[in-house]
Amino acid sequence: MPEFRQNRATKEWIIIASERAKRPQEFIESNSKSEKLPAYDPDCPFCSGNEDKTPFEIFSLKKGKSKKWQVRVIPNKYPALIPKGELFMQRDGFFLQAKGIGYHEVIIHSPGHNKSLANMSQSQVERVCFTYRQRYLDLKKDKRIKMIIIFENHGERAGTSLVHPHSQLVALPLVPASIRHLLEEAMRYYDDHGSCVFCDMIKEELKAKKRIILKTDDFVAFHPFASRAPFETWILPLKHNASFGSIEVRDCEDMARILKKILKKLDKGLLDPSYNLLIRTTPVKDKEEDYYHWHIQILPRLTTPAGFELGSGIYINTAFPERTAKFLRNEEIR
Amino acid sequence: MPEFRQNRATKEWIIIASERAKRPQEFIESNSKSEKLPAYDPDCPFCSGNEDKTPFEIFSLKKGKSKKWQVRVIPNKYPALIPKGELFMQRDGFFLQAKGIGYHEVIIHSPGHNKSLANMSQSQVERVCFTYRQRYLDLKKDKRIKMIIIFENHGERAGTSLVHPHSQLVALPLVPASIRHLLEEAMRYYDDHGSCVFCDMIKEELKAKKRIILKTDDFVAFHPFASRAPFETWILPLKHNASFGSIEVRDCEDMARILKKILKKLDKGLLDPSYNLLIRTTPVKDKEEDYYHWHIQILPRLTTPAGFELGSGIYINTAFPERTAKFLRNEEIR
Repeated sequence: MPEFRQNRATKEWIIIASERAKRPQEFIESNSKSEKLPAYDPDCPFCSGNEDKTPFEIFSLKKGKSKKWQVRVIPNKYPALIPKGELFMQRDGFFLQAKGIGYHEVIIHSPGHNKSLANMSQSQVERVCFTYRQRYLDLKKDKRIKMIIIFENHGERAGTSLVHPHSQLVALPLVPASIRHLLEEAMRYYDDHGSCVFCDMIKEELKAKKRIILKTDDFVAFHPFASRAPFETWILPLKHNASFGSIEVRDCEDMARILKKILKKLDKGLLDPSYNLLIRTTPVKDKEEDYYHWHIQILPRLTTPAGFELGSGIYINTAFPERTAKFLRNEEIR
Repeated sequence: MPEFRQNRATKEWIIIASERAKRPQEFIESNSKSEKLPAYDPDCPFCSGNEDKTPFEIFSLKKGKSKKWQVRVIPNKYPALIPKGELFMQRDGFFLQAKGIGYHEVIIHSPGHNKSLANMSQSQVERVCFTYRQRYLDLKKDKRIKMIIIFENHGERAGTSLVHPHSQLVALPLVPASIRHLLEEAMRYYDDHGSCVFCDMIKEELKAKKRIILKTDDFVAFHPFASRAPFETWILPLKHNASFGSIEVRDCEDMARILKKILKKLDKGLLDPSYNLLIRTTPVKDKEEDYYHWHIQILPRLTTPAGFELGSGIYINTAFPERTAKFLRNEEIR
């Protein structure tokens, strides 16, 4: 019997399609073991030594006193938004538009062409997390910026165009409607219950146990009760904080630890699947709200959302999160 | 300079990425000319003669007095929802779920294995539209049903698994959160302006002219000002009606005329692109609302939504709808 499940935080329903549910290992794609990449590609603009192929450097972490960079941030060569100008809404009768101002940056994870987050050292993942934090804090100082989206597109099915591992950051001068709706739902829960829905979700998932993959000192990772897709993974900080901008430098270590472990389990369990990784956070000015809770979402791209998902917003999931969580929990990592 | 544009009906912003904008013909995929399919495939469960490979028939249109079906409706063999049972929300502490009841049907467009909507006769498209209407009206009689989603997934990138042209219908016992948000935005516009935002959009798009592709007696097709993706097409009935269930049998003719012409232009202009087609309508019980306006959306799958779209709900469009509309307007069809 198929079942509806509701994500209490987003109020989104999903359907677990029991009639076509698969076992966790059936999600390994036949062609999913990606070709072995070289450590260096002379044509790759993100590889160490090819810095002249990219626009100027915005930020970098360097190794000791050497000039070698470890993480490097550059503007996107084909930016969706550009930093110059003032935001003003232009009304052409019925139609509303605005200049595309904002920031669109690329965070190159390491000089290595073939080092995914799953396969680099934990201290290097920590540097990536530190860089996310640094760029977040720097860009939120720009008074025009209302919302900062940090994400990684890993693998072809996740929409990446350059294979050298990197994340992206887009800083927006407005709060998108879909984010407003998320916040409204969380606010309503807070009004009804007097508590943060994400804090409650952590408590309840820890009590239920069966969807938990990993818990560290400061974070917990699980497959949500109402997972939209097979192996959807949420990583939440145990301590309530609405904004990613609230994390301290010392938190980056534990964030890197759990992130690397989860990605390694996915990498080993599903043989390097494509995924989108998102940092979900409040608009920059709402940083101390009681009702929202920043977190990381990892969405493996194992299935194709089609007309039903587009038309209803309801995702059909062909896996039970209880089973996929167990599969990943048992997936040994080095 | 990139630009933000807002869809006034959904309140969604999109970004036109001018830095990487392409000309309309650049969206033709190198591999997009689909292989020539045979008119009949002995292994296809939807082909005429293979009726025993499908579950029972729910509905069909037959040619005159012969027993030959022209359009055939069957239950989905791997249904996301099943018709038996009562909806009751089950509360397991924090978690909310419900039995997956509802309907999941397949509408086989014709006996022909290789006849897409773009390439069949107009009278056959009319039969498909008539069947959409018929199934909508039949299913809305079931008091458990709150929302009916009709859609077509055309081509591999649109998530189809069987190539024999067909649509699907899912009847839901609940109203999804994303639909509620859409309705709320339309309601707010109505409260502010005293008019239906879609009626206003039709008026303004007809006045602006540049994004219109085609107008018939009863419908208009255009690329919305804030198109989420290259070649996104909306087809709206000129007459205000909130619900698809309101269309009369005689309306099916004009609906089929414009639908076939638009799909033919896409088929010729982009060499048979993958697309999702959706019928957007109100929940079945809100059928006479002043603020919503049923319509058809066609979303060609020419680009891959990635982390930014998932994280922000803002789509980055690499084409100007003014240019793609002109391209399709000029695309001659037989």
